[in-house]
Amino acid sequence: MSITLEQAEQAVKAAKAKATEIGTLMNIAVVDAGANLKAFVHMDGAWLGSIDISQRKARTARYFDMPTGEIGKLSQPGGSLYNIEHSNGGLITFPGGIPIKDQSGEIIGAIGVSGSTVENDHTVAQAGVDAISE
Amino acid sequence: MSITLEQAEQAVKAAKAKATEIGTLMNIAVVDAGANLKAFVHMDGAWLGSIDISQRKARTARYFDMPTGEIGKLSQPGGSLYNIEHSNGGLITFPGGIPIKDQSGEIIGAIGVSGSTVENDHTVAQAGVDAISE
Amino acid sequence: MSITLEQAEQAVKAAKAKATEIGTLMNIAVVDAGANLKAFVHMDGAWLGSIDISQRKARTARYFDMPTGEIGKLSQPGGSLYNIEHSNGGLITFPGGIPIKDQSGEIIGAIGVSGSTVENDHTVAQAGVDAISE
Amino acid sequence: MSITLEQAEQAVKAAKAKATEIGTLMNIAVVDAGANLKAFVHMDGAWLGSIDISQRKARTARYFDMPTGEIGKLSQPGGSLYNIEHSNGGLITFPGGIPIKDQSGEIIGAIGVSGSTVENDHTVAQAGVDAISE
Repeated sequence: MSITLEQAEQAVKAAKAKATEIGTLMNIAVVDAGANLKAFVHMDGAWLGSIDISQRKARTARYFDMPTGEIGKLSQPGGSLYNIEHSNGGLITFPGGIPIKDQSGEIIGAIGVSGSTVENDHTVAQAGVDAISE
Repeated sequence: MSITLEQAEQAVKAAKAKATEIGTLMNIAVVDAGANLKAFVHMDGAWLGSIDISQRKARTARYFDMPTGEIGKLSQPGGSLYNIEHSNGGLITFPGGIPIKDQSGEIIGAIGVSGSTVENDHTVAQAGVDAISE
Repeated sequence: MSITLEQAEQAVKAAKAKATEIGTLMNIAVVDAGANLKAFVHMDGAWLGSIDISQRKARTARYFDMPTGEIGKLSQPGGSLYNIEHSNGGLITFPGGIPIKDQSGEIIGAIGVSGSTVENDHTVAQAGVDAISE
Repeated sequence: MSITLEQAEQAVKAAKAKATEIGTLMNIAVVDAGANLKAFVHMDGAWLGSIDISQRKARTARYFDMPTGEIGKLSQPGGSLYNIEHSNGGLITFPGGIPIKDQSGEIIGAIGVSGSTVENDHTVAQAGVDAISE
């Protein structure tokens, strides 16, 4: 199973609402089960460099089926996945990417958010995830 | 002036409606005045290879402020712009990309559509353009 | 609003004068509001490798609307943006890139300078910024 | 010998004046004897896609020490240099790139111009060349 466009648009809408609620301007990307881009929006005035980062976060989260921040803990100097960022054309491993599960718990895609602190990015991504999983 | 997200989402919505009306499954990308991605959707079941092509069409249309098919006429063997596709990291010069103007006629971005025949791609892109310009 | 060529040439001229004043040979790049290259000069004898770096610094500063050195503080091992340099086709996050604001405070582009110590690079970039903002 | 920045800026200035004289908006790039970018300007409102093309034309002209259009005659289907555009990270082989010689006839760099018809691009590039060679 892969996320539908209707689900992806729900996730984007929920993430956008959360971004507005916490006073941030975000780039929001959703990828499908095959890690291919499904939906994307750039909020007016959001960082241009985060267009690319949000998509990389979403892909990274689906590539390894875990939140990007978890990978980042292991990719530090001396860590077991040191410099894993060099693979797959460039990964982003700080928080803001989260796998999306359907209500049965199956992973059907991922969301990546970039535009503020990594804590805010993660919060907005989680809002997108929750709109589908809950 | 650059296209707003609200305008980009109107263009995507209109293009998606046209795609459904003519029985096609499309990838639809909108870029801003700086040729940066503003919004994107992949309709369920649409070609995966067109995720990239739709974005390149949108960028190509904004790069030269003309429909992509116009460039393609000039980039043929013997044409004045032969092999222009090698520039800018890879252009797409067949129909399906069109600049987006606001109601005053200023170019504020572009739309790129890919997923069917180039005639259908262009028709769907035009529906997106018309939603903003008219 | 995006920086005009006249403004970009003013910024380049001021940066070049500062580079000469402090006895350095610099590469100086200016990008517009869309992070596209607006103007560039390579001073005779300046490092060839800095042709690319100066442009990446300018883009990076506009991508995140902050001086590149600020991003570099956060992209260190253990930092919240560790390895962000892998995004956007390769970022440069040490000092020498600064957003350019117009007199109203709006960001209209960015300047990137490379060719000496990062302190000198930043000093020369700041001279370019000041020529527009003040 | 390689072109100096003073010479490159003369070439850019002359090319810009010619572009204005014939009513066009151009991207103008100058590379040195090593095919590295020496100077660049993007005239306000010029095509964004031509930022890249002007630089490729300048490099292509210096790579082979001949006007880009000459290479384009040979790179057509059936021609002796068919699809040479695939080399060097992407060449542009239609008119608008011309080697720059000093007054002794030695090639010291090249200029590339993009933003209008290839005839206009070539005319503007020639004006830049003449400012140095004559």
